[in-house]
Amino acid sequence: MKIYHHLICLAPLTALIFLPALSFAQNVQATANKIEYPTGLTNWRVIGSSIRNDNNTQRVILGNTIAIKAARSNTAKKQWPDGAILAKLVWKNEILPTWQSATVPGDFVHAEIMVRDVKKYATTGGWGFARWTGLELTPHGNDKTEAQQACFDCHQAVKDSDYVFTQPAKLP
Amino acid sequence: MKIYHHLICLAPLTALIFLPALSFAQNVQATANKIEYPTGLTNWRVIGSSIRNDNNTQRVILGNTIAIKAARSNTAKKQWPDGAILAKLVWKNEILPTWQSATVPGDFVHAEIMVRDVKKYATTGGWGFARWTGLELTPHGNDKTEAQQACFDCHQAVKDSDYVFTQPAKLP
Repeated sequence: MKIYHHLICLAPLTALIFLPALSFAQNVQATANKIEYPTGLTNWRVIGSSIRNDNNTQRVILGNTIAIKAARSNTAKKQWPDGAILAKLVWKNEILPTWQSATVPGDFVHAEIMVRDVKKYATTGGWGFARWTGLELTPHGNDKTEAQQACFDCHQAVKDSDYVFTQPAKLP
Repeated sequence: MKIYHHLICLAPLTALIFLPALSFAQNVQATANKIEYPTGLTNWRVIGSSIRNDNNTQRVILGNTIAIKAARSNTAKKQWPDGAILAKLVWKNEILPTWQSATVPGDFVHAEIMVRDVKKYATTGGWGFARWTGLELTPHGNDKTEAQQACFDCHQAVKDSDYVFTQPAKLP
């Protein structure tokens, strides 16, 4: 009876935990700087959005649970906590055929993440950087410099905001 | 012992179910066409994004579980299923101070939803429409016509895509 009770009550919990992972598990190669593509990234909650007029793309910025907690409690304004992962899904801009004044996601360009670990990534502002290109999620960068340092070089422009360009959007 | 076992194993499940609801529960007034603001809307998964150049806004489009399943299995291309709710979070465009070629969310404009119920909303394409303005989420529209029909009038332009402007973005 003990086992029966455990099975009955654990079943829904187990389903909740493993269903998203199973549904979205992918065999994606880690980047040259050894960052793994987070399983279920597209199920993460939203932090914001942005349009880059210099390269004709738009993006949605998502966060894992730690990042969302920081973004939505405003603690991220000072410093993002260890374990936070920020993710950007990036698309080429496309005019919506049925409403020409709207610009919407066209081809998928890449997914990119910033992983917070102050000690591990001490030489790059406490962030690990990674990008996977196209719907097939090909790791970007042939070596650690291309995969990590190149990203950080650009992010140094926003040292004052903890090397993060994204400002969490105001949410109701 | 039976009770003890149930308590032990239900505790984490209960926490999972009620924590987001408690964290984000809000006292938001229903619209004039009697549509309730969905609790935890900002925790929903992403369907896409868009920029409207005619009114200088950008938005992220989210969906409840039924909508996400339809969007990601491409069944939404034909018809969105009953129970689906699409949500738009809309912000005024703002130039990112640290990267001038990026346009990011500024002031929050409104949250709006489309609720699928083919029978209930038979006279408006099978969709209930609702909008809440500002971070305080004030219901939009003084009567049913303003709250429902006005939205539908515009959405008739996209009758061929089940009255929905949003095309689910390509996701890896």
